[in-house]
Amino acid sequence: MLIAIPLFDRFAPLDAVGPYQVLSELPGAKVVFLADRPRGVSDSKGSLTLQADAAYGDVPRPDVILVPGGFGQVDHMGPGPLQDWLVKADETSTWTTSVCTGALILAGAGLLTGREATTNWLAHDELARLGAKARNERYVFDGKYATSAGVSAGIDMALALAARIAGDEVAQRIQLGIEYDPQPPFNAGSAETAPPEMVAELRAASRFSR
Amino acid sequence: MLIAIPLFDRFAPLDAVGPYQVLSELPGAKVVFLADRPRGVSDSKGSLTLQADAAYGDVPRPDVILVPGGFGQVDHMGPGPLQDWLVKADETSTWTTSVCTGALILAGAGLLTGREATTNWLAHDELARLGAKARNERYVFDGKYATSAGVSAGIDMALALAARIAGDEVAQRIQLGIEYDPQPPFNAGSAETAPPEMVAELRAASRFSR
Repeated sequence: MLIAIPLFDRFAPLDAVGPYQVLSELPGAKVVFLADRPRGVSDSKGSLTLQADAAYGDVPRPDVILVPGGFGQVDHMGPGPLQDWLVKADETSTWTTSVCTGALILAGAGLLTGREATTNWLAHDELARLGAKARNERYVFDGKYATSAGVSAGIDMALALAARIAGDEVAQRIQLGIEYDPQPPFNAGSAETAPPEMVAELRAASRFSR
Repeated sequence: MLIAIPLFDRFAPLDAVGPYQVLSELPGAKVVFLADRPRGVSDSKGSLTLQADAAYGDVPRPDVILVPGGFGQVDHMGPGPLQDWLVKADETSTWTTSVCTGALILAGAGLLTGREATTNWLAHDELARLGAKARNERYVFDGKYATSAGVSAGIDMALALAARIAGDEVAQRIQLGIEYDPQPPFNAGSAETAPPEMVAELRAASRFSR
């Protein structure tokens, strides 16, 4: 089973690496990170660089596609190498998935039109504007499309996806392997639970299209 | 505030990248990934390569040290470049921390002797053997030393550390930013909650020293 994770400049590292840590444990899984060409791809801080070992075009028929988000998503919502690859690869994929604002890249490519989907809590309106039925859920499955909420939600989605691919027992063994028994020290991880002034502040600063 | 994350071959990616995603958001934070020399460092699957931008010795006095775990930890519990750097850097660090079996590297360097600490659920005995007071907790603070349970626990520890460094409000804003409102699809993330036969199977297969 070939799993392709396309990277782009200013991606969010945890969006890609959370699901990687889960999905790479699936029996028979082979994961490849892609970019416009084989190169190191850096996050928005410029302090983390992940190696893309192949160009998008080198992996035309992955079984699973996982598109991360991050500030750089704004550069890939329209025509370009990532969108071209995505539209073609989606024709034969078994699962096409995204984390955080990666959903805006899928939606920009027309892959979520009329489908239930989710994204970063700040980007629901933008996702709807791009034609999806935006849902306020941790992750959403609609046919072969799976999308998750922001950043850390990719771990939850990847475990649910692992279960659909290989069964509940395999997914649970992976969960135990990564000791995923979350105990956040605060209850501020969603717009519903964070202090309202913090939510308002982040909302005011957010922007997902040019 | 300089945060150093030492990498080594066969590290566990989420151990490093979960806390990175949290700590890199701290005001004034600069994170640098280190290795024996500047190079790409790969995980145990060989499919993920993170760039180390500097050698250990290039960053002698970080404020925060965060040591990830992963199968490669067995190569760094004794004398060598990582241990040499760690012992020196710890003399002036404000916080010395680890995720998962990274605690065995700290303990192997003598930094956890007599201290309360935790590690991957499978490695508690090994941690005790190395002189620490092993605790079955999600994360443990003992003075300037913070250690976390396996892999995903680094996210929880990093949020708690962010609060100690910059206050609860900053930590909560980071939590909201990464939408850390975990909703695992299964309750199998700890030895206490996973199916007993799965726990026994992983225990039988585990080995943390040569």
